[in-house]
Amino acid sequence: MTRPVLIAGAWRAAAAAGTFQAENPATREKLADEYPISSWADCEAALTAAASAAKVLRQASGSQLAEFLEVFAAGIESRAAELVEMAHTESALPVSPRLKDVELPRTTGQLRQAAKAARDGSWRHAILDTGAGIRACYAALGPVCVFGPNNFPFAFNSIAGGDFAAAIAAGNPVIAKANSSHPGTTRLLAEQALLAEQEARMPSGTVQLIYRTSHADGEKLVADPRVGATGYTGSRSAGLKLKAAADAAGKPIYLELSSINPVVILPGAIAERGDKIAEEFTGSCLMGTGQFCTNPGLVLLLAGDKTSSFVEKLVQQFNAAAVGTLLSASVAKNLGEAVGKLKSSGAQELTAGKGEGRGYCHANTLLQVQGEKFLADPELWQTEAFGNASLIVVAKNAAQAAQIVDSLEGNLTGCIYSDTSGSDDNLYDQLAPLLRFKVGRLLNDKMPTGVAVSPAMNHGGPYPATGHPGFTAVGIPAAMLRFAMLHCYDNVRPERLPDILQDKNPTGKTWRNINGQWTQGDLS
Amino acid sequence: MTRPVLIAGAWRAAAAAGTFQAENPATREKLADEYPISSWADCEAALTAAASAAKVLRQASGSQLAEFLEVFAAGIESRAAELVEMAHTESALPVSPRLKDVELPRTTGQLRQAAKAARDGSWRHAILDTGAGIRACYAALGPVCVFGPNNFPFAFNSIAGGDFAAAIAAGNPVIAKANSSHPGTTRLLAEQALLAEQEARMPSGTVQLIYRTSHADGEKLVADPRVGATGYTGSRSAGLKLKAAADAAGKPIYLELSSINPVVILPGAIAERGDKIAEEFTGSCLMGTGQFCTNPGLVLLLAGDKTSSFVEKLVQQFNAAAVGTLLSASVAKNLGEAVGKLKSSGAQELTAGKGEGRGYCHANTLLQVQGEKFLADPELWQTEAFGNASLIVVAKNAAQAAQIVDSLEGNLTGCIYSDTSGSDDNLYDQLAPLLRFKVGRLLNDKMPTGVAVSPAMNHGGPYPATGHPGFTAVGIPAAMLRFAMLHCYDNVRPERLPDILQDKNPTGKTWRNINGQWTQGDLS
Repeated sequence: MTRPVLIAGAWRAAAAAGTFQAENPATREKLADEYPISSWADCEAALTAAASAAKVLRQASGSQLAEFLEVFAAGIESRAAELVEMAHTESALPVSPRLKDVELPRTTGQLRQAAKAARDGSWRHAILDTGAGIRACYAALGPVCVFGPNNFPFAFNSIAGGDFAAAIAAGNPVIAKANSSHPGTTRLLAEQALLAEQEARMPSGTVQLIYRTSHADGEKLVADPRVGATGYTGSRSAGLKLKAAADAAGKPIYLELSSINPVVILPGAIAERGDKIAEEFTGSCLMGTGQFCTNPGLVLLLAGDKTSSFVEKLVQQFNAAAVGTLLSASVAKNLGEAVGKLKSSGAQELTAGKGEGRGYCHANTLLQVQGEKFLADPELWQTEAFGNASLIVVAKNAAQAAQIVDSLEGNLTGCIYSDTSGSDDNLYDQLAPLLRFKVGRLLNDKMPTGVAVSPAMNHGGPYPATGHPGFTAVGIPAAMLRFAMLHCYDNVRPERLPDILQDKNPTGKTWRNINGQWTQGDLS
Repeated sequence: MTRPVLIAGAWRAAAAAGTFQAENPATREKLADEYPISSWADCEAALTAAASAAKVLRQASGSQLAEFLEVFAAGIESRAAELVEMAHTESALPVSPRLKDVELPRTTGQLRQAAKAARDGSWRHAILDTGAGIRACYAALGPVCVFGPNNFPFAFNSIAGGDFAAAIAAGNPVIAKANSSHPGTTRLLAEQALLAEQEARMPSGTVQLIYRTSHADGEKLVADPRVGATGYTGSRSAGLKLKAAADAAGKPIYLELSSINPVVILPGAIAERGDKIAEEFTGSCLMGTGQFCTNPGLVLLLAGDKTSSFVEKLVQQFNAAAVGTLLSASVAKNLGEAVGKLKSSGAQELTAGKGEGRGYCHANTLLQVQGEKFLADPELWQTEAFGNASLIVVAKNAAQAAQIVDSLEGNLTGCIYSDTSGSDDNLYDQLAPLLRFKVGRLLNDKMPTGVAVSPAMNHGGPYPATGHPGFTAVGIPAAMLRFAMLHCYDNVRPERLPDILQDKNPTGKTWRNINGQWTQGDLS
């Protein structure tokens, strides 16, 4: 019994070209449920349904979109135990606190923040220029394809996570492509999404779910004329293929690809509070078995005695820490290959763990390379080792540290730890301006894991961390702008303007820019 | 004597792979000046200089950027007579009112609006979230390549026009690639830009000028790691090649490619004020010999007696109007080919002009096709005929008109004329929602030419009119967002934050979003 797909408001048998089963990564055993690998016919049907829904959703009120999102959030909570159990089985992520107490509440919180933004309308950035007789705002774009990653079965899930919430709140239907490592979790979420679609009287076709396609069909999907845009979170290689297809068709695609998230720890900080920082680093690097987009994969230190003892402390902690389970066979394989590549290129392995277990796993690993070697081939040394591994780079002096920072690729985050008495300030001032332009989020004295859902968050950054340096994947309302187009109205008669651009403020609370002034008032 | 290029703060002999001369399109005679076709060495030098300038400009204050822009604007005015004369010689555009009274003041006005935006800082969209300890704003991106079009020697000039002003005001150096049809105008503008660079103590390398490169070098340029983004206005074919190169390298590129700007004139409007509308249309279509991005190249009418007389009136006006000079041999050639293609595909030629003259020209041309024929091959019938020609499409009824609108490609603009007594309202309500999602700017009762430099303007639209539906090429400050990246600061110590994100409002006037409220105040 192959599970059906969700298209046009109903579960229906897939036009399947094959099937697949997920695994329990903690036992390496296949799970019973069979899921379809859809042929193009399913994509075609999903596109038709989504395009039809888009015509209705474009006109939907923010309140209706909000109602859907809120009903959906409540529906997820009503099935929390079952969802957590399924996600735990499919991902081996801990039930508590991770799935139950952190990720599921984060997910429903995102949906509710998106609901609030949809209802409020300020995200549409309405601009009224009465002198020129022109008004403008952001508006829905059309069906959004969402490809979710393996590492957040709830919060980045293609049918319940951040991209989904942002796309819907901006007034777009979604075609969700499940991540193959957690189809069951995605199915349960989709069931609740469908119930919410019905309860909030959304057009059928607002939410679609397909589990897997061929790569060729995925590329055809994101390039289809009916698509508005695509949100993708996952590996660089698969993401860049989708990007090429979407780019060639002139379709926006937002990608969150890979990031090694450099952490620079300056000598004064090590002298002042090395033990505390070591603990923070180990915690951040091994949490979730290191499987975060913002996992600190590269640590830049300056050579010195205290640095050596600091590294020894890290090594002790890595050796002592429990080895977590990885999300899948392919995560384990890729991590092994990346670590192997760095080692065979001359990185010194500092840790001594073996990382053998019943489930997929890899020893907690710290590698080390000298700055000179790093600079001889910066691209090689920035190979992402996704998981519980990190590379320590030791610069011989400030100038070399600056060169290393300047040689970094685009990243989601970059951190600098410095002391509080000022001895690191000179170094900070040399390195921070260089690091600033390599990363979307610059941190001080704090590890990069933990991505607050804040309006000021940038979970984005320069290529190749993402596909565009001006957008964030996390943070409401900013993340919604990815799924919007700019609508200008020139001399359009007042009664024909959308509510948000009429003289009267539609909610009495929506922020609009009227003749250069931001206001919640009416145009008077 | 081949003219030098402007690189790193000085005019220097080009590393030329050849030379070219512009023509006077009114006489078809080559102009005396020889301009270089740069080899890659010039691009390389320009990139190095711009990358070096970018590191300084990133830290420049808004006031300094503003000073540069204002000195430059004044410098252009001080040489207005010479600039107008040169632009007239190179483009055959009329001296007055076009070049002297409209386009040059528009250009200096844009530079001053950009200066105001740079000084004010509100464009950076600062967001302070004190609860999460996170702050964010837009910031400079890096060197911007600007490729200007042939049809606006001042206002879209690569070293003085809208893209240039937006890029500089956002804190980026510019590598300008002159349009080959007006190198002399561009040279004069660049001379003033260099003087302004020196007077405002901007880093040398803030402005660079190259006249022409091979296509391959152009593609290499926009994909170079040192580039922040590219702004391009021009033909679809050349633009899409640059887009492919930039996309593959993960570099943002903003393109304004082509647009036929559909104008729908409903029956009630024709009955009510057909004569007035006919005059408006003829004026809009033939102004500047039709060489505007927003030229109305497709008119959709509904069949009927009054429509026939309306069309007859247009034909009389087109036949009676003077034939303007086209910008270049290639514009004339492309226009002739496009009109020929439409005619040989079965469009009826309504006008009778010959369009022969000393300069490059083409008869004022109206073609007509029935709705059914249009729908049999919508792509063919949307062939852009850039210049003084337009295609009338006659739909047999409302349903067919809706199908035609729904078959349109992305455009910069779309207009609907309707009567004031309400008889067209039903038709409007059928067509407007379809047209809305095909265009960046929707107009009522107004022709699309005339693009106000307003904060609410959208001179953009869905692909293939542009490369991204969320951005505008005209309108300060919105156009600046194309050349910015999102910078987030997480837990960064207060004194290390950029001015715009500190508790105190840096100007006392900058609009910032503090904990969800837009304010010009300090964080208290």
